[in-house]
Amino acid sequence: MFTLGPNRYGKAETRVVRVTRDGDAHRIKDLNVSTSLSGDMTDVHLTGDNAAVLPTDTQKNTVYAFAKKHGVAAIEEFALLLARHFVDGQPTIHHARVEIEEYAWERRAGHSFARKGQEVRTCLVHYDGETATVVSGLTDLVVLNTTDSEFWGYLKDEYTTLPETRDRVLATAVTARWRHAGEPGDWEASYATAREALLDAFATTYSLSLQQTLYAMGARVLTDCPDVCEVRLELPNKHHFLVDLDPFGLDNDGEVYFAADRPYGLIEGAVLREDAPGAGKAWD
Amino acid sequence: MFTLGPNRYGKAETRVVRVTRDGDAHRIKDLNVSTSLSGDMTDVHLTGDNAAVLPTDTQKNTVYAFAKKHGVAAIEEFALLLARHFVDGQPTIHHARVEIEEYAWERRAGHSFARKGQEVRTCLVHYDGETATVVSGLTDLVVLNTTDSEFWGYLKDEYTTLPETRDRVLATAVTARWRHAGEPGDWEASYATAREALLDAFATTYSLSLQQTLYAMGARVLTDCPDVCEVRLELPNKHHFLVDLDPFGLDNDGEVYFAADRPYGLIEGAVLREDAPGAGKAWD
Amino acid sequence: MFTLGPNRYGKAETRVVRVTRDGDAHRIKDLNVSTSLSGDMTDVHLTGDNAAVLPTDTQKNTVYAFAKKHGVAAIEEFALLLARHFVDGQPTIHHARVEIEEYAWERRAGHSFARKGQEVRTCLVHYDGETATVVSGLTDLVVLNTTDSEFWGYLKDEYTTLPETRDRVLATAVTARWRHAGEPGDWEASYATAREALLDAFATTYSLSLQQTLYAMGARVLTDCPDVCEVRLELPNKHHFLVDLDPFGLDNDGEVYFAADRPYGLIEGAVLREDAPGAGKAWD
Amino acid sequence: MFTLGPNRYGKAETRVVRVTRDGDAHRIKDLNVSTSLSGDMTDVHLTGDNAAVLPTDTQKNTVYAFAKKHGVAAIEEFALLLARHFVDGQPTIHHARVEIEEYAWERRAGHSFARKGQEVRTCLVHYDGETATVVSGLTDLVVLNTTDSEFWGYLKDEYTTLPETRDRVLATAVTARWRHAGEPGDWEASYATAREALLDAFATTYSLSLQQTLYAMGARVLTDCPDVCEVRLELPNKHHFLVDLDPFGLDNDGEVYFAADRPYGLIEGAVLREDAPGAGKAWD
Repeated sequence: MFTLGPNRYGKAETRVVRVTRDGDAHRIKDLNVSTSLSGDMTDVHLTGDNAAVLPTDTQKNTVYAFAKKHGVAAIEEFALLLARHFVDGQPTIHHARVEIEEYAWERRAGHSFARKGQEVRTCLVHYDGETATVVSGLTDLVVLNTTDSEFWGYLKDEYTTLPETRDRVLATAVTARWRHAGEPGDWEASYATAREALLDAFATTYSLSLQQTLYAMGARVLTDCPDVCEVRLELPNKHHFLVDLDPFGLDNDGEVYFAADRPYGLIEGAVLREDAPGAGKAWD
Repeated sequence: MFTLGPNRYGKAETRVVRVTRDGDAHRIKDLNVSTSLSGDMTDVHLTGDNAAVLPTDTQKNTVYAFAKKHGVAAIEEFALLLARHFVDGQPTIHHARVEIEEYAWERRAGHSFARKGQEVRTCLVHYDGETATVVSGLTDLVVLNTTDSEFWGYLKDEYTTLPETRDRVLATAVTARWRHAGEPGDWEASYATAREALLDAFATTYSLSLQQTLYAMGARVLTDCPDVCEVRLELPNKHHFLVDLDPFGLDNDGEVYFAADRPYGLIEGAVLREDAPGAGKAWD
Repeated sequence: MFTLGPNRYGKAETRVVRVTRDGDAHRIKDLNVSTSLSGDMTDVHLTGDNAAVLPTDTQKNTVYAFAKKHGVAAIEEFALLLARHFVDGQPTIHHARVEIEEYAWERRAGHSFARKGQEVRTCLVHYDGETATVVSGLTDLVVLNTTDSEFWGYLKDEYTTLPETRDRVLATAVTARWRHAGEPGDWEASYATAREALLDAFATTYSLSLQQTLYAMGARVLTDCPDVCEVRLELPNKHHFLVDLDPFGLDNDGEVYFAADRPYGLIEGAVLREDAPGAGKAWD
Repeated sequence: MFTLGPNRYGKAETRVVRVTRDGDAHRIKDLNVSTSLSGDMTDVHLTGDNAAVLPTDTQKNTVYAFAKKHGVAAIEEFALLLARHFVDGQPTIHHARVEIEEYAWERRAGHSFARKGQEVRTCLVHYDGETATVVSGLTDLVVLNTTDSEFWGYLKDEYTTLPETRDRVLATAVTARWRHAGEPGDWEASYATAREALLDAFATTYSLSLQQTLYAMGARVLTDCPDVCEVRLELPNKHHFLVDLDPFGLDNDGEVYFAADRPYGLIEGAVLREDAPGAGKAWD
C-alpha cells in the first residue's frame, strides 16, 4: 500500500575542536560535523527493529575518536575517512554522507587565537562503498562593489516599475560549492585558490547583471582549479538602495545607501566543464 | 569549454500582509513569498544581456498586485496563480517555482490579532507551462512525548557507548511536506487534516525508533489525505538527557531532563503510495 | 590605581525540562534558567583566588537538583528558591539574580505535547539576604490591529517627510515586565491576568500613537493586578507599509501591506503606581 | 493614580552604507544606527497628543541626510552629531541616546570589498543638552587559549561535582565597552588601541579564573587608553569539554574537545580608574 522512499539518518552538528600541541605553537581546527547513513533501513521504519541501525550517538563518538586517532588535516580528508569507516565497517550501511563546516582562526600568540569570523569553509562527501564524491565550498562570504555594476535592458511588463541604472552598488553573500572530478594534491591550497578565484572574479567583472557575475565566478574557479568540474553558486542580491535626499535639498551621487534586508534577489546557477562526469548524488 | 548548468533567479521573501475588511470582522493573511524563474537565460549569464530577464523587482510587484486583485485564499492557490502568470505571460520564462510561508494569527477581537507562533505553514509550487506540482507542508512544529518511546537492539561497534533504554523522552521539531497527486477540494481543510494526522500519529505511535515514528506519521497523512501521494519528513531528534542526580543522593525516575542543543540526531525519510506518479521537479 | 566595579557571574541558560507523572496525565515544565551571583569577589578578580567562588557548574547542578526535590510550580517560586539557597547557603555570596524563561506546551494526549510557540513567559528575581524582588513578564507576543490607529499632529522639521495618517495598521512584538510589590496568592493566575490585560488593552485602545497604547497597556496591568506596582514595556513598531499599487491601476484601501524588518520604531516606557516602593536592583 | 515612568522612543537599526569616492579608491562605512529621544512626553502617553514627538521616520531621514552632509568619520563623532542635532534642535526633546554598530570591510581592489566578519564595533552616546557621554566598544570577538588556564580552589557544596583542573581551554566571545572621560584625539586610533589591549591581555594573562582574565583585560584598556575611565566586560565562558576517549582505548591529553552551546558561564564586571567621574546615564 505505502512504501518507504529515500531516507537517511545521522548525527548533525557535532562540534569538535582539535588541538595540536607542537611545542609552544599550538594549532586548532574547529569543525561542525554532520554524518548521515543509509542502507538496510526498511525494518526500522516499518517495525522499529534497530538491528541495522548504528546509533547516531556512535556516529558522534566516532567523530571524536577519529579526531584523536587521525588528527584533522583538510576537512575533505576527514570527511572521507569517516564516510569510508561507516560504509566499509557495517554491512547494513550502504551509503554515507558527511558534511563539515570549518571556522577559521588566526593565531595571536603561541597558544592564543581569535576567530576570523569571515566565510565558513564547507565540504560535502558521499561514499557508497565504491566511489566517493567530494564537494568543497564556502558560505557567508559577504562582498560588495561600489561601482562597475549596471542593470538595464530587461523585460518590462505591466508590473515593472524599476528604473534602469548604469551604476549601482552590487553586494552579495557568496555561497559557493565546487565538485572535484579528482583529488587535488593539496586540499588546503585548492581551497585557497578557489576562494581567491571567487573574490577576484567578483572584483574584476564589470557586471551587467548578477547572473553574469555568477557565471564569471564559477568559470574562474574552473579555470584556476584544474580538478574541479562543476561549481554551484547561490548569490543573494543584497540590495543597497540609493536614499532619496531630494526632499532635504541634497543630491546623492552614489554616496548614501540603505542596506535592505528583505525581500532580496536570489540568483542560483551552476557552471560546468563540458566533459564533467555525472554528479550522481554528489550534491544531495 | 565551460557550460551553464541548472539555474534560476527570483525575489526571495517578499513579506505581504493582506487584510480583508468585511464589516467589523477583519481577516488577515500573513505571507512570505519567494518566486524563482528559469528559461532562456544563457545570454544573461554569458554576456549580461538582460533581454530575457523579468526583474526580481517586478516579481515582487506582481506578488503585491495579485494579493490585491485576487485576494489570498489558500497559499497553494496563490502560488499557482503566480507561477502560471510568470510562465504563461513571458515567452522567455519556461519554469516558475513559488514557495510561500504562512504565519497563523488568532483573532482577539474584530480587528485585533495575536500571532499564533506555532508551526509555519508552507507550500512549494512548480509550473512549466504544462503541468503544475503542489507540495504542501509545515515546519517548526515542536512535539514531545514523555513516554512510550524505547531505543534498544541497535548495532554496536567499538565506538558505541550509548546504553539501551526502555523508556525515554522523544521530542522533535517537525518539518513535513506532502505532495499532492491531484487538487483537494479545499486546501485549508486538507492542511488541517494533514496537520492533525501528523500530531496524532506522533502521539499514538509507541516508538521503538524515531524512524518508526517518522514512517507512521507519513503513512497517517497518506491515509487521511486521499489526494496526497508522497510525504517527506525531517525530524531532528531533540535529545532530552536524563540528568544524573546520584551525586546528590537523589533518584531521577524520568523527572528531570537536560534539553540539549547540539549535536542532535536527524532522521529524514519519505513515505509514498505505491502508485505515486513521478515527482519531476516537485521537490526541487 | 584601578578598582573593581559592579560584577556578577553565573551559569546562563540551563535548559531543564521537568516531567511530572501523575498516572497517565503527565505534565511538563520547560525552562531556561540563568543564575548570577555576587559577593566577596575582589580576590578572584585581582589574583584568581577562587575561594569565594561557587562554580557555575555547581549552580547548574543546583537547578537540576532543585527541579527534582522541589518540583517546578510557578517560575517565580522556583527562582526565589534558587536565589535564597545561594545567598543563605554561602557566606561569600551576598546577592543572587535568577532569570527564567518558560516555554508553554499544550497537551495533545495524556503524554504527548505540542509547544505553543507564542509568547515566552519570563521572570527576574533578586535576593540580597534580606529582601527579594520579583519581576514577572513575557516577550515575543506579536499583536496587530488592522484599524483604530492614527498618527498625526507630530513635530515637523526639515527632515520630516512622513505623511500624516488617520488609519494605519499597528503591530508590535510585546516585551512586558511587571514588578510585584507583594506576592500574589497565585503566580499562575496573576500571569494569566496580566497577559489578558496586555492583549485587551492593545485591542481596545483607539490609538493616536504607540506611546498611548503603551501607557494603556501598562495601566491596565496595574488596574487588573493589585500587587503589581510598576510595568515596563518595550514595543517595537513593526511597520506595515501600504504598498503603492497606483502604477498598476489598482487602489489600495487598506488591503495590501509590506511588513518591513528594519529599521523599526522602538517605544519604551514605564507605568507606575504613585505609591510604588523603590525598585532597588529589581530591574538590573 | 498611575504615573509615567522613564521612557524613550526612537528608530532602531537604520542600516546606512556611506560610500566615499576619492578617485578609484573608494571607501565604505557600514553602520547600523539606533536613535532614541526623550523629553516632554507625558501628553503623548496620556492622550496621544503628538505635538512634542519628532517622528521616528524623521530620525531615520536625519541619519541618511547627515551621512551625506557630514560624511561618517568615527562612529562616535557621527553619534555625537546626531545626538546634539536632536536635542539642540527641538525644545521638546531633552535627551538623545544614539547607539551605532559598525561592520568592518577590507578592500580587495579599488572598489571591491569583503566584509571582515570578525568583531562588531559599537558606540553609545548620550546627550542631555549640556553634557555628552561616549562609550565605545566591540562585541562578538571570539578568542580562545589552548593552555595557561586553570580552575581550582573554589567553594564546594553538596551540589559540586566539577573536578578541579590545572589546564583547560579558555574561550569566550568578548563584549567590551569602555567609557571615555574625555575625547581621545583620534577615535579610530583609540579603538585600535583598546582592541589590541583586549586581545593581548587575553593572550598573555595566565588565568586562574575567567574573572581574573576579565579584570586584566579591563585594566589593560585603562592602561593603554588614557582617556578611558571605565571598562565593562561580558565574557561568556564558552565551555570546551575534553571528550572522554577512554571507552575507545584512547587517551586525550588536551587534544579533542566538545564545544558546548548551552549552558555557559557568564562573567560580567567593570574596572574603573579610582578617580573616574560619575557615569550618569552613560551606560543606559
